Amino acid sequence: MKVGIIGAGRIGKVHAKNISMFVPEVEIKTVADPFMNAETESYLKNLGVREVTKEAQDILNDKEIEAVLICSSTDTHSKYIIESARAGKHIFCEKPVDYDLDKVHEAVKAACDAGVKLQIGFCRRFDHNHRGVYDVVKSGRIGDVHMIKISSRDPEPPAIDYVKVSGGIFYDMMIHDFDMARFLAGSEVTEVHAAGSVLVDPEIGKAGDVDTAVVTLKFENGAIAVIDNSRKAVYGYDQRVEVFGSKGCVRNENDVPNTVVVSDEDRTSYENTYKIMWDRYTGAFVSEIQAFADAVLNDTETPVGGEDGLYPVLMAAAATKSLKEGRPVKIAEVE
Amino acid sequence: MKVGIIGAGRIGKVHAKNISMFVPEVEIKTVADPFMNAETESYLKNLGVREVTKEAQDILNDKEIEAVLICSSTDTHSKYIIESARAGKHIFCEKPVDYDLDKVHEAVKAACDAGVKLQIGFCRRFDHNHRGVYDVVKSGRIGDVHMIKISSRDPEPPAIDYVKVSGGIFYDMMIHDFDMARFLAGSEVTEVHAAGSVLVDPEIGKAGDVDTAVVTLKFENGAIAVIDNSRKAVYGYDQRVEVFGSKGCVRNENDVPNTVVVSDEDRTSYENTYKIMWDRYTGAFVSEIQAFADAVLNDTETPVGGEDGLYPVLMAAAATKSLKEGRPVKIAEVE
Amino acid sequence: MKVGIIGAGRIGKVHAKNISMFVPEVEIKTVADPFMNAETESYLKNLGVREVTKEAQDILNDKEIEAVLICSSTDTHSKYIIESARAGKHIFCEKPVDYDLDKVHEAVKAACDAGVKLQIGFCRRFDHNHRGVYDVVKSGRIGDVHMIKISSRDPEPPAIDYVKVSGGIFYDMMIHDFDMARFLAGSEVTEVHAAGSVLVDPEIGKAGDVDTAVVTLKFENGAIAVIDNSRKAVYGYDQRVEVFGSKGCVRNENDVPNTVVVSDEDRTSYENTYKIMWDRYTGAFVSEIQAFADAVLNDTETPVGGEDGLYPVLMAAAATKSLKEGRPVKIAEVE
Amino acid sequence: MKVGIIGAGRIGKVHAKNISMFVPEVEIKTVADPFMNAETESYLKNLGVREVTKEAQDILNDKEIEAVLICSSTDTHSKYIIESARAGKHIFCEKPVDYDLDKVHEAVKAACDAGVKLQIGFCRRFDHNHRGVYDVVKSGRIGDVHMIKISSRDPEPPAIDYVKVSGGIFYDMMIHDFDMARFLAGSEVTEVHAAGSVLVDPEIGKAGDVDTAVVTLKFENGAIAVIDNSRKAVYGYDQRVEVFGSKGCVRNENDVPNTVVVSDEDRTSYENTYKIMWDRYTGAFVSEIQAFADAVLNDTETPVGGEDGLYPVLMAAAATKSLKEGRPVKIAEVE
Repeated sequence: MKVGIIGAGRIGKVHAKNISMFVPEVEIKTVADPFMNAETESYLKNLGVREVTKEAQDILNDKEIEAVLICSSTDTHSKYIIESARAGKHIFCEKPVDYDLDKVHEAVKAACDAGVKLQIGFCRRFDHNHRGVYDVVKSGRIGDVHMIKISSRDPEPPAIDYVKVSGGIFYDMMIHDFDMARFLAGSEVTEVHAAGSVLVDPEIGKAGDVDTAVVTLKFENGAIAVIDNSRKAVYGYDQRVEVFGSKGCVRNENDVPNTVVVSDEDRTSYENTYKIMWDRYTGAFVSEIQAFADAVLNDTETPVGGEDGLYPVLMAAAATKSLKEGRPVKIAEVE
Repeated sequence: MKVGIIGAGRIGKVHAKNISMFVPEVEIKTVADPFMNAETESYLKNLGVREVTKEAQDILNDKEIEAVLICSSTDTHSKYIIESARAGKHIFCEKPVDYDLDKVHEAVKAACDAGVKLQIGFCRRFDHNHRGVYDVVKSGRIGDVHMIKISSRDPEPPAIDYVKVSGGIFYDMMIHDFDMARFLAGSEVTEVHAAGSVLVDPEIGKAGDVDTAVVTLKFENGAIAVIDNSRKAVYGYDQRVEVFGSKGCVRNENDVPNTVVVSDEDRTSYENTYKIMWDRYTGAFVSEIQAFADAVLNDTETPVGGEDGLYPVLMAAAATKSLKEGRPVKIAEVE
Repeated sequence: MKVGIIGAGRIGKVHAKNISMFVPEVEIKTVADPFMNAETESYLKNLGVREVTKEAQDILNDKEIEAVLICSSTDTHSKYIIESARAGKHIFCEKPVDYDLDKVHEAVKAACDAGVKLQIGFCRRFDHNHRGVYDVVKSGRIGDVHMIKISSRDPEPPAIDYVKVSGGIFYDMMIHDFDMARFLAGSEVTEVHAAGSVLVDPEIGKAGDVDTAVVTLKFENGAIAVIDNSRKAVYGYDQRVEVFGSKGCVRNENDVPNTVVVSDEDRTSYENTYKIMWDRYTGAFVSEIQAFADAVLNDTETPVGGEDGLYPVLMAAAATKSLKEGRPVKIAEVE
Repeated sequence: MKVGIIGAGRIGKVHAKNISMFVPEVEIKTVADPFMNAETESYLKNLGVREVTKEAQDILNDKEIEAVLICSSTDTHSKYIIESARAGKHIFCEKPVDYDLDKVHEAVKAACDAGVKLQIGFCRRFDHNHRGVYDVVKSGRIGDVHMIKISSRDPEPPAIDYVKVSGGIFYDMMIHDFDMARFLAGSEVTEVHAAGSVLVDPEIGKAGDVDTAVVTLKFENGAIAVIDNSRKAVYGYDQRVEVFGSKGCVRNENDVPNTVVVSDEDRTSYENTYKIMWDRYTGAFVSEIQAFADAVLNDTETPVGGEDGLYPVLMAAAATKSLKEGRPVKIAEVE
């Protein structure tokens, strides 16, 4: 199966590397990036990528290419989804599909109409720890889901210039957790309440965003979820989920680089979790691409489809509105 | 120091036993209970209690008695606080002071006016694990408080007849967590948002209450807290707190009966937390009475004063209103 | 049931306190100690002890007294066991019975001949964590026992003057672990190999003892145990056991004062285990006396009988010989 | 840097795969195996291996090849080390070098004389958890080393036919732990005492071997180490080390596939460690080859040199003799 990658930034390169190392059934024929340069070209060629180009169109026009990975900037996602769909190519698109709900709807519809597969890059669904929690929930071992708690904290806030164009913490950061909450609940969200503060960096507040946020979600089945986000956890990338149900509770902890425990005169201690997202979710990036390849090759459904791209954006819209208006907002209000 | 205990139900007996065993500087002169019977009398006499009576007035009139422990039903708390204060006796009163805010105000004021010490029975502040978290926060090791997360789940819902008169989950159960949130935040709550569901037992819903609740608190200093309560955690009494700050994060785990870990062919496992509240908070009950005795004997401030009795009731009132009206409620609205 | 306590040193006082607080079916009539002074008398009287004396004989002659707790110095244990047995009193005796095997045999025989109950104070069998491991082994969950590992390390070496008369690390410290190994193995030791070094304090070496020791035990059933002792673990009182069997493995960890975990920029850490033995084994001391009282009152076997007093001394003798001669020593050689 | 691999069995394939995926500075020119077949050839060619052959000599004669990985059966190790050394090639050789001490000496000498680099495949030194312990010891955080404890247990015994030619548990299995003990102690072993039993499978006993073994090591610096091995731990591949020192204690735990913890009505549990060695030491195999490549490319010392190949064999010889003769054996006796 030959694929093309649109976008050769950080995430595009990670996917290229993972495919070349771990997904032998996929061959990267072409990588397109308007800013393609000699260094990137050399990196990609070493991975076995056959062609590089500045024109995404070269990929879309290539009959040999069966599937496209869209790793370009968010504002181009929906456009490339639509064009890829029209070109009859299966699509893996990084999250979020778009900040504009109309565009999300349009993109999802285009893929659906064209009958191509669409997978959204919510990589955390493929993380061993989060997946482990999901598997326990799915198995019925903890019974019906009553509550979900998600902590998701970054080691460092992004640059202020990025914050200004990021769409805000709910679109940029909590979007992953919205997806995770739906994934674990097995039910749709009906109402969102957001609380937020500027406690990390006043510049974030000046940019119109918050850096500390707690969002409560109510689900159709009565379950309640709570997500907390902070832009700055000094001890590292903090990613934990807990699902409480009628028959028990399942949760995970952060990964640590090793299991070493030291006791000295003062304390017993061990190493903090990872400080870099790429170290934390290494395996998840491989697994999601493997899953996409499997879905295309076996003609099965992708594990994270168009609807899964849409709902987190709805939740982010509702959270943004809730924070602004100081009241809970129903999903129906933003649809 | 001679004390009297009003109320010889479960909690009155626990305090009597703890004092007789662990607080040698306190002598229980009299225990009063309108339902005093031979069995209770025998139990108390074996602990060294000198006198038992059916009349609380016998305690209030006794010049020898310096302090009173009010362990009677909630609806009599404010009355006995006022009467004890007028009799010039120091007061330890079980939580909550009252469901009626006016009565709480009146009781707190009475103690204040009389110049007697008042301590409210929020025992969890004295628990080794919760206290341990508090000490870390207080020490400044995690910097400014940004977020607080409290999980507080009971192993079994109370009898429906009790639920009906309990005042609801926020007054009856979450009141402890409201106190804990204030204790850990070192700041006052300004706004409360409550989400609730009936997922454990439909009878609880018919009684006008919820059995699953998530409450978000906003504090004056910008910190945000989230409390989750369930009336039924099949694995035991689940009591954990986490405080996230600018310089780190501190949390505790549930106590377990022992540290034994077994690995067999299938899994590695250990024992669940306690299923009975009295087993979980054994030490906390002793410590709170010790602290009260210390405050009286050394004429220092009690560690949980009248205001600490008032605010959690305000928070419960706001949470109740929030759940009913489906919107965040400011503390100022219920004061 | 009325008891007398011979010896009012540290351990005698602990037993007196525990009985008065937690074992209501036992009444301490008399405590005897040749160095009885006003302070000790006052302490004991406050606990409800009726009489104090300098003469152990007062206890042995007292018809009312059914049982004796021997808490005097080790060199008097066997003598008081024999005299108590002849006086027809049940006996709880602190460990070790004696360093001299003949005396141990004689004492055990005396109790046996007199038909009185004898319990040796191996308190760790009653510790919640060690007992928890034992219960798992006993239940068959880990199958047949193949290996046992015991770590037992003290926070500080005793005073050199004590080391000189202690009988050596095997009699003074590892004796507890010898008992634990037998308890967990359910089989008798046939051979002992000891390795030892002086790494903590050269003065201990000058006193003819070692401060770091590793002993291997071979059991009749083929199981192998390893015990390691250090006189100085700077992080606290380190007491862990592990039993490995045909169907799994069970182990315990040290208790910690609380479950608080702190993550800061550098590390994630928690509190060390206890630094004081009495804090670590608080519950075990209560449980062993309760068990003794139950055995006497219900006329059942004591859980740690005369043979349990004998075998650890045999093992200590073999270990001492092994260390000296640089070869494994069979128990049969020292019997 | 071009290398050749002698031996295309399990471990040879693992090294080939790891080099092709993770060590870009190394190119595998040739793989030699007398049993080379179409399937293996296809596997290797897919990894980018240029040539395959049945003749190791093809590698030794190839001027382009700078270094050789010896992954053939143990009885051919010393021969290929000598031949590779004479051919002027750097050498990475799987453990153990040989069971015959003379051959080990000869091989190590040959490499030394030829001035080529020699690294022995003690992969565990490169494992993140064991390395983590080593780093703490090396940093001085726990002070002087007093005791070392190593648990090393396999999930399943090998086939009896293999056991018969394996050289026994000390050469085949504990050899890794002998290396680890030296690595952690930073001192040489002077004396070895072995205890062993047949508890897993009587066939192993009939083959003249034991399946359960505990070995005590005495080091020049007075430190004492204990290693326990079992051929069958039903819960998985159990690999833990602990180092106790004058200033503290450091230990590691087994890796688990994920951090998921489930509490249900009965127990709290998590997943067992890996049941397959290759899953457990994945990263270690990559790191050791990377370290070898670095040593060759930068002309620095290999991290596990010829002496590191020799000493564990001496320890295995001493342990074998100790078990047979029922007494501690000095290393000097077997040198």
